Amino acid sequence: MLQLKEIIQDASRLFVGDAVPDQYYQDTYVKNIKPVYAVALPKTHKEVQELVRFANEKDLVIIARGAGTGVAGSQVPIQGNELIIDVHLMDKIVELDEDTLTLTVEPGVLIGDLHDYVENKGYFYPPDPASKHSTIGGNVATNAGGLRAVKYGTTRDYVREMTVVLPDGEEMTLGSLNIKSSSGYDLKDLFIGSEGTLGITTRIRLKLIPLPKANVTILQAFETAQKATEATLEILKSGVDPSGIELFERSALHYAEENLGYPLKSQVGQAYLMISLDGNDQKELDGRIDIVQSVTSDLTLESHALNAEEAEKNWALRDNILLGLTKFTEFELLDEVVPINKFAELIESTKAMQEKHGLNVLNFGHAGDGNVHTLLMKDDLTEEEWTEKRAALLKDLYQKVDELGGLPSAEHGIGIVKKEYMGRMTQTINLDYMRKIKRVFDPDNRLNPDKVF
Amino acid sequence: MLQLKEIIQDASRLFVGDAVPDQYYQDTYVKNIKPVYAVALPKTHKEVQELVRFANEKDLVIIARGAGTGVAGSQVPIQGNELIIDVHLMDKIVELDEDTLTLTVEPGVLIGDLHDYVENKGYFYPPDPASKHSTIGGNVATNAGGLRAVKYGTTRDYVREMTVVLPDGEEMTLGSLNIKSSSGYDLKDLFIGSEGTLGITTRIRLKLIPLPKANVTILQAFETAQKATEATLEILKSGVDPSGIELFERSALHYAEENLGYPLKSQVGQAYLMISLDGNDQKELDGRIDIVQSVTSDLTLESHALNAEEAEKNWALRDNILLGLTKFTEFELLDEVVPINKFAELIESTKAMQEKHGLNVLNFGHAGDGNVHTLLMKDDLTEEEWTEKRAALLKDLYQKVDELGGLPSAEHGIGIVKKEYMGRMTQTINLDYMRKIKRVFDPDNRLNPDKVF
Repeated sequence: MLQLKEIIQDASRLFVGDAVPDQYYQDTYVKNIKPVYAVALPKTHKEVQELVRFANEKDLVIIARGAGTGVAGSQVPIQGNELIIDVHLMDKIVELDEDTLTLTVEPGVLIGDLHDYVENKGYFYPPDPASKHSTIGGNVATNAGGLRAVKYGTTRDYVREMTVVLPDGEEMTLGSLNIKSSSGYDLKDLFIGSEGTLGITTRIRLKLIPLPKANVTILQAFETAQKATEATLEILKSGVDPSGIELFERSALHYAEENLGYPLKSQVGQAYLMISLDGNDQKELDGRIDIVQSVTSDLTLESHALNAEEAEKNWALRDNILLGLTKFTEFELLDEVVPINKFAELIESTKAMQEKHGLNVLNFGHAGDGNVHTLLMKDDLTEEEWTEKRAALLKDLYQKVDELGGLPSAEHGIGIVKKEYMGRMTQTINLDYMRKIKRVFDPDNRLNPDKVF
Repeated sequence: MLQLKEIIQDASRLFVGDAVPDQYYQDTYVKNIKPVYAVALPKTHKEVQELVRFANEKDLVIIARGAGTGVAGSQVPIQGNELIIDVHLMDKIVELDEDTLTLTVEPGVLIGDLHDYVENKGYFYPPDPASKHSTIGGNVATNAGGLRAVKYGTTRDYVREMTVVLPDGEEMTLGSLNIKSSSGYDLKDLFIGSEGTLGITTRIRLKLIPLPKANVTILQAFETAQKATEATLEILKSGVDPSGIELFERSALHYAEENLGYPLKSQVGQAYLMISLDGNDQKELDGRIDIVQSVTSDLTLESHALNAEEAEKNWALRDNILLGLTKFTEFELLDEVVPINKFAELIESTKAMQEKHGLNVLNFGHAGDGNVHTLLMKDDLTEEEWTEKRAALLKDLYQKVDELGGLPSAEHGIGIVKKEYMGRMTQTINLDYMRKIKRVFDPDNRLNPDKVF
């Protein structure tokens, strides 16, 4: 049997026992100090296989990890004595194949770098999670989404082929370059979104599309989030095929305006939509701007098609909602999802919960696909109050999400943070079959056990 | 235990033993006389459950069946003594929900009726397999595609939620109304395309989109299929987002022209593309017609944007390729798929096979997504010659498809007809995991056993 030091001969890529850096005990929000066996940073598929075989010999549990930007605790050790396989050094862009419109990458490529690379060559990879420092491997593990999912779908829709190392060290390639398939079971989609519980992804072939040549943003103001949700539905029905419909409330924007030092272009109303359209040329977009404004005219207080400079400044405000908040308070970001017509009802319900539990709540999110980002704010609460009030509010919130036919996670994953709610919100028979499938691929429960379900 | 006559009390919906009509021993191409136990035609989810429980008690194998328009023998009895559950009477359109843009249907709804229903209300269900008499349940079972997959994807992309009866009679609902999910394993996509081997679908909730308001077709002529394939890639890269790119050869068209009695608008060249564009208005399309013509100008012999009447007549010719052939010869229709850049190479290779095996071959297909429909023609061959030459040619053909990185079936399924080739073209480890997953859901191998793999 190969020893760890024989597999990873470069000492700078191996940390054992006490030498393991603190960062491996946490992700963005979750910290859990359970001393791990070792952290190894492979650079090749073969090293990943050897590490997995080593873990089998030693009977160690494995956690695969990328940039550590997760928010659900999925990559945090919870048992102690784990072998963490950090793939973030496997960061090569392997091949842009312009004849099949695909890009082959290793799992550690950062999503921001991937976007820059393909856009410089005239191509487009639509999924755009907020963290540009997340890895594509992590994006596949959580089926990451982002602002453009309403038109373009999520990571799932762009993975043509992926190679994984299974819990026993064997390799398997899922999917293919073929665009259509009716040739056996779809194993690929089982692995996408499985949060590192079925295999470790070592290579991914992504579908690209041509980069849209023109973009425009429309900013609309509404009296209430309910009216903004109604407008969203009208826009979706109109055929303009928006590439994004973001909703935020004035209360959430406040921090961003203060932080950036300039106001949103609209100062009326309590809720806003920012609607993105993209296409082949400005002429195409002009026609669609007219359609958007016409189908929403009974609902809006104001509607502005923004010029390029305005668009940049107003998007910066929207993107700054979180960053603005960090200056004022600690917070926790959720990613629940409901059917699109329940979006406003969910947001509205959080206001009663805010009163009931004495915990400030803000909301923004992807109205076009029903994904709300609810923010729980710690403000001046003590740790004890925060822990207690947070738990009580989350229980109410996920119960409401469930009543509305929603799910606990749209794009961040379940990890350990939402596992309890996932258990309550999922039919027993579905959970049972998920567990059975886990056992098919991982009979020893070696890969990221006790996460998700 | 309930007897069959107690479950299906209406005698017109139950055929036992010798009373089973001939149609249940065949699909479009495959006939196999293996006397079945009975055929039952349930009208409700509950009746399906009771039938499955009955089969468990009696230890009968079950085949679920819809309109019988399959072409791969997937619904044909191969063991004898099967219970066939024919769901084509479960044909209710249950609900159009305009607030979530979804349509709930029973599995027996015909795809042509579904299209008519939603299009009359201003909505669009893009998957459009050639047989309008196929059922939506069958479409889900084979992940049916059609002409519009290049822009809109296949059946998989439109199933939001489905309810299935599992091999033990339990029910499970897969997917949800939520557009995004990172909440556990994707069980839904495992069932889509599984050809009735994992469960019997009893209810499906489909995603709808707004009906495009304008359409145009461009007909282009080329010296060779290779040039048409190169043009396809240029069009895909241009950003015009075509809703269809069909390729056919003059040799295949010949029968359609003779049958319909008028010529294709272009009479030059050996290969043609028919490119569909759709959008919000004619102005949008005009810009994109210019782009298509400009990016393909070095490759085409002729390029015509067709007016509505021309489009109808020329599409009728394309659609008549098969119907035209039926007047001249028996034939077998294949549905192999290769990466888009290998489309012409595959077509070209069939010409050498035609010479080698003395069997006439024609090709047409969905160039935009790499799906070739190769036609093997019986012509004047004796049954014996046909059987022998067909087998020899198929072996060569699927070997070539495999070399090109392709798959045996893009949209029709594997059934029994392509099972041998599927076995050769799929990695052993992938086949093993498919079998293990089959055992998870169907440990008694009760549902459509020995199909697919």
